[in-house]
Formats: sequence, C-alpha cells, structure tokens
Amino acid sequence: MLKGERTRQRIIAKAAPLFNRRGFDGCSMQDISAATGLEKGSLYSHFATKEELAAAAFDYAWAQTCSARVGNLDQAANSVDKLKLHIANFVSKPSFPGGCPMLNTVLDADDGNALLRRRAEGAMRDWVGYLADIARAGQAKSEIRPSVNPEELAILMISLLEGAFVSSKLQRSQSALLLAQQHLETYLESQVRMRGAEPRG
Amino acid sequence: MLKGERTRQRIIAKAAPLFNRRGFDGCSMQDISAATGLEKGSLYSHFATKEELAAAAFDYAWAQTCSARVGNLDQAANSVDKLKLHIANFVSKPSFPGGCPMLNTVLDADDGNALLRRRAEGAMRDWVGYLADIARAGQAKSEIRPSVNPEELAILMISLLEGAFVSSKLQRSQSALLLAQQHLETYLESQVRMRGAEPRG
Repeated sequence: MLKGERTRQRIIAKAAPLFNRRGFDGCSMQDISAATGLEKGSLYSHFATKEELAAAAFDYAWAQTCSARVGNLDQAANSVDKLKLHIANFVSKPSFPGGCPMLNTVLDADDGNALLRRRAEGAMRDWVGYLADIARAGQAKSEIRPSVNPEELAILMISLLEGAFVSSKLQRSQSALLLAQQHLETYLESQVRMRGAEPRG
Repeated sequence: MLKGERTRQRIIAKAAPLFNRRGFDGCSMQDISAATGLEKGSLYSHFATKEELAAAAFDYAWAQTCSARVGNLDQAANSVDKLKLHIANFVSKPSFPGGCPMLNTVLDADDGNALLRRRAEGAMRDWVGYLADIARAGQAKSEIRPSVNPEELAILMISLLEGAFVSSKLQRSQSALLLAQQHLETYLESQVRMRGAEPRG
C-alpha cells in the first residue's frame, strides 16, 4: 500500500468512531486533526470535503459492523441456524464504538447530510438483501417454509434487533437484547423452519 | 396563566421540535431566539441554562408523544385490544416533529447531555410501566394469560415498534411499521390473549 493510501486509511479509522459517536455536525475537521495528529491541510489533501471523509468513515464503520455480525455465518450449514447465529452475533458481540452506524446515521440531525443518509439507506438495503438471500437459499434447500416472505423476515429481524439495541441503551441492561433474541429464535423455530411433516416447497 | 408563564410555555413549544430534530448540540439558544422572536437575554430570564430549557422541551415533546399514543386507549374495554390500539396509534398517528423524542435523545451524541439522557431513561421506564400495568390488569380480569411476563411483553412491543420506526425511515416506506403491527397483533392473539379453553390464572 502506498504511503498516501496508508495515511488515508489511518485518517478514516480515526475519524469513523468520532463521526459515529458525535454525528456529522458534532465532529469537526479540527477534532479529526487532533485525533490523527495531522494538520487540517493534510486532511484536505486526502479528502476534498468533510462530507467525503464522513462518507468514507461510514463505509469503514459499516464494513467493520457487518464483519462482526456475519463473518462467522459459514460455521452454520442450515439457513435457519445461520439466521440464529446472526442474531447471536448482534446480541453478544461488541458494536462499533458508538453503536450501530446505520442507526446513528439515520437518526442524526434531521437536516443532516444527504450523502450520509443515502449511505445509511444503502446499508439497510444490503442488510435486508443479505438476510433475504439466506432465507431464499433455505427455501431452495427445503429448510425454510415456502410461505415465508424472505424480505419481510429480514425486515422483522432487523427492526427488532435495532429496537432492542435502543431499549437496552435506555435500560442500561442487556435484557431487551436477550428478550429479542429469545423471541426471534422461537419465531424462527415455530414459524420459519421447515419441519419433516410439512409439504416441501 | 400569568404572562411570564405563557411566555415560558411558548418558548418550550417552539424549542421542542428544534431540539428533537437537531439534538442538544445541534440547536443553539440563538436558534431558539430566532424561532421565538425573543432576545437571548429574555430566554435566559426564563431558563437558567440551555440544559434546563432542553429538559423542559423534552418533557413537552414526550407528553405530546404519549398523548398521541395512549390518549384513546379507554375506547377499548379489553386489555389485549388496548395494547392493539396502542400499536395502531404508534404506527398510524404522526409522530412529534423529528420523530420519537425518547429515541432521538438516547441516540443523540454519546458525549451528550446527562440530564437529557436521564429524561429519556425515565420515559422508557414510564412507557414499560404503562404497558405492563395494562397487561397486569388484563391478567387480573383473565383476559391475558398468567404465563405472560408483563414487563417482557412491554419491552418486546416497544423494541419492535421503535426499531420498525427506524427501518421505515431507512426504507422511506411505512411497510416495516405495518409488518411490526401485523407481527405483534398475531403474537398478542396467539400467545397473549386468554382463550376460553385455557385454565384461568
């Protein structure tokens, strides 16, 4: 990796937790300068605008988040077990510093940044698509009931996990996350997993 | 109402949507001065600090939010129907400008305001307690199964509704909210409502 590219990556890695914790408006180029030890001029030689740096920082934070949530899913052969492992990852692995970047970005100030908002919307699309693909593959292998709507299952899982993350912050306790996990596992076993007695899709 | 108190209420009503949209750091006393047409000195004659005004603004926004979500629950006699009406209110009534004040406040910058964070935590406690009380009353009237844990039911409902609100923002569509409503209604009917055939608690 060229030195310029290494510096660019180092700036992104330092900026990502700052933007994720404080939001776009709450984090200045001065803050990033202090965190990296680089002059503002040097930051601007790598990123034309604060917006461009914030977008790269979001991509970095989201990639790290996804890696923690889905990196080990190949350990499960069955698609329902993959979904359960994803839920367990969400509940028990530490989140990116400051919490879920997608959640933070979409709830950042209303008059916040349009480019970042599109990034968060793209993250949601990717996440829904990723889980829906697991469900579709499960249907093809007769592991998941044909009556299940893959996108709806994905949205339900994401909504409950993200909401439980918020509840657990509000209650300063893991219990809402554990409750969400238990609820989704029961749902997956009772409404989603194909049982021997059922007609195959 | 004395003139001073009327002015105070007018400041709170103008400040509440600004703080809810932009967060504590994103909204200055100057912004509130512009919105109210009052000099900053006049604002400070009503509120010793910006923090004090923001806390009053949160209480106002939360009271309005609760009123929209629970104001009509007496229309339903049965406790399960009350919970379903609450869900319908959340899904279909417009939220306070800028979205749920509790959600926005807990996800406002990490190094955000401790007083406001305690307000949001208190709002969560009240909301959980309110729904759990409905469930407990339903158990006393044999409308809700004795096996249901009232607090856990409340936390599950709140988590899924708040998470679906976030998903619907990310997808720019109501569908995640409608999906959450459908899921919770099915859950309430199949796992929570007491049926004639069951033993009474």
